[in-house]
Amino acid sequence: MNQSSNSTVANKMLDFMESASWIRKMFEEGACLKAKFGADKVCDFSLGNPDLPPPESFRETLKTIAADRSPGVHSYMPNAGYLDVRSRIAAQASRDHQVEELGPEEIIMTCGAAGGLNIIFKSLLNPNEEIIVPKPYFVEYGFYVDNHNGKLVPVKSKPDFSLDIHSIENAINNKTKAVLLNSPNNPSGVIYSKKELEALANLLTQASDYFSRPIFLISDEPYRKLVFTGSTVPPILKFYPNSIVTTSFSKDLSIPGERIGYVAVHPEVSQKTGLLGALTLANRILGFVNAPALMQRVVGKVLDAGIDIGVYQKRRDRLTEILKEAGYTFTVPRGAFYFFPRAPIPDDTKFVRILQKERILTVPGTGFGAPGHFRIAFCVDDEVIERSREGFKRTMEMVK
Amino acid sequence: MNQSSNSTVANKMLDFMESASWIRKMFEEGACLKAKFGADKVCDFSLGNPDLPPPESFRETLKTIAADRSPGVHSYMPNAGYLDVRSRIAAQASRDHQVEELGPEEIIMTCGAAGGLNIIFKSLLNPNEEIIVPKPYFVEYGFYVDNHNGKLVPVKSKPDFSLDIHSIENAINNKTKAVLLNSPNNPSGVIYSKKELEALANLLTQASDYFSRPIFLISDEPYRKLVFTGSTVPPILKFYPNSIVTTSFSKDLSIPGERIGYVAVHPEVSQKTGLLGALTLANRILGFVNAPALMQRVVGKVLDAGIDIGVYQKRRDRLTEILKEAGYTFTVPRGAFYFFPRAPIPDDTKFVRILQKERILTVPGTGFGAPGHFRIAFCVDDEVIERSREGFKRTMEMVK
Repeated sequence: MNQSSNSTVANKMLDFMESASWIRKMFEEGACLKAKFGADKVCDFSLGNPDLPPPESFRETLKTIAADRSPGVHSYMPNAGYLDVRSRIAAQASRDHQVEELGPEEIIMTCGAAGGLNIIFKSLLNPNEEIIVPKPYFVEYGFYVDNHNGKLVPVKSKPDFSLDIHSIENAINNKTKAVLLNSPNNPSGVIYSKKELEALANLLTQASDYFSRPIFLISDEPYRKLVFTGSTVPPILKFYPNSIVTTSFSKDLSIPGERIGYVAVHPEVSQKTGLLGALTLANRILGFVNAPALMQRVVGKVLDAGIDIGVYQKRRDRLTEILKEAGYTFTVPRGAFYFFPRAPIPDDTKFVRILQKERILTVPGTGFGAPGHFRIAFCVDDEVIERSREGFKRTMEMVK
Repeated sequence: MNQSSNSTVANKMLDFMESASWIRKMFEEGACLKAKFGADKVCDFSLGNPDLPPPESFRETLKTIAADRSPGVHSYMPNAGYLDVRSRIAAQASRDHQVEELGPEEIIMTCGAAGGLNIIFKSLLNPNEEIIVPKPYFVEYGFYVDNHNGKLVPVKSKPDFSLDIHSIENAINNKTKAVLLNSPNNPSGVIYSKKELEALANLLTQASDYFSRPIFLISDEPYRKLVFTGSTVPPILKFYPNSIVTTSFSKDLSIPGERIGYVAVHPEVSQKTGLLGALTLANRILGFVNAPALMQRVVGKVLDAGIDIGVYQKRRDRLTEILKEAGYTFTVPRGAFYFFPRAPIPDDTKFVRILQKERILTVPGTGFGAPGHFRIAFCVDDEVIERSREGFKRTMEMVK
């Protein structure tokens, strides 16, 4: 109370800003580099901001729908979104996840996957209940869970970033509400296999029986469509009834600024009516109210569209060659657009600073709960990737 | 723990859904009426969903911007929004609120005013800190404050719904973080006067001195542009440095489904850097990330556009005549599109049910913290209003 009574800004937010400040500092340092040497002289691999243009069908559909003057096209609709859009998405989701009878009522349109995760946590979490997430994980998860008074419990994965079922098992207790997966994974680029998912589903089924309440599987999968030749992302809903999927169109349509995605709930999820009601109410009271009307209508018409993954794959292959040549240790990403190599020195933040001297901007693994690594986001031009070749090499030689 | 360990959905959300269920029930009853008699036979005054088309300039600008293929137009931008859009809004806000030196850094683009209020409360509230709001008030405020572990403290207003400064003064204590105003007011249609705002500003200045920390004034003003002949909405920022305004384009452009609005912070607000940083971080971590990119660019170009308020004014005048003729007691709304008459019987929910028998749908004042009243939203066709004339009359005669 003393503390709070003296503050203007919420103490927690002050702490968050302070803890986030070193990341900001690195971005500022990067900005300084660009200012000093020119953006074209800096290799910026720090942001996961898709650089490919949206698919042609998206652009054409957007033009058509923007010209639609029908009454009410910009009005409120049900908080869960337009029924026809949700029906089309339900049809696609039931194919992708191999569950029949997934209908529009099990789909809730959201402001991207970030909005989706927030309404899921708001709907599920009682104070201090826990969400288990395998490392490495997207740094925002900690904030999302904390928003709703829950606790994020990161657990270790295997050296190749595949699931360590035993570490998940050991983390489960009577406060565990869900396990959160992100596959293809940001930052590691791994895709959890059918075998891993089946093992996890078995574990969660047993744990749910033991605590006689469901422990949920939450899948955050904005990169599901962004996978490289020879890889596929196994369905999630198929393996476990108490599963909830959220995704966005940000990455596969290259429209992250438009904030459009959805939540899909398994048709046989426990307390379905209550859960769907809670998700819809959460969408309303968290201030989203509904996903942006215009973009709902656009994505509903281009569900089969996607950017040219071949472009990302060529970049991945080139970076694989560059990093191998320079002698880095890493797992070749099978999806998404990130490499997560081991830093050649223990202090990943220090190593990222050293890379900056070569005008190469990356993000320390510490930010993803995996110190000793660093993230390279390759949603940048081939030319930038090629230009980084010597820098990655020199840095490795320097620290060896 | 016992309770939570048995639940699937968060207990709080189950409670919220239950408490909200009577409102849902009334909507369902209304839906039944429409199904039974046909929508054209029911007078639905229950929803504040603007029915007028968006201004022509909005539609044309939307078409132009939707056709823009420049690189990155759908990408992430800074979490606070596009700098050029924020600059134009800052210029308009400094005119509206009569504060100089309001710049783009004091503007944060949001997913409507609902998103704006959520990032404000997230940024300000420590657990159990209080937000004072005069009755009647928008029912969602309770949820928004609770989302961030704060407490909404409704206080009584004068019979004409003007501010009761003494009841606000009595409610202020060492946990008070802010006073929240909504003017023009939903549901009462009143506009708080310059005199009331000056008195409130003086009170808050004294209270801030007494507790040696700022007590904020938060103004939720989506209806600022929606005022009738002879009325104006006084500036807010002008009267009090520790003030924060949030608004949306939902009502004056008739685009509530698009979720676009902003937060404007007083240039001399206490701990400005921290507060702006917190608001921007809150926008990101609550899952909004940023206000929808396309709509940011559109509204930035049509800041002077607005729907034809004359249409709403004619409806207000007609309803004034209808309600007078029938003998209802009410304050004539000076802005927004709501009447909030006194229910002729003490039980407002019961009275709303009686109106349903005349196929007139309204909302009980209980939902706005003001039992004994009912809300009529007149964003409906003139024909519907005219058709309600006899029903309002008969109901009054019946209960007299």
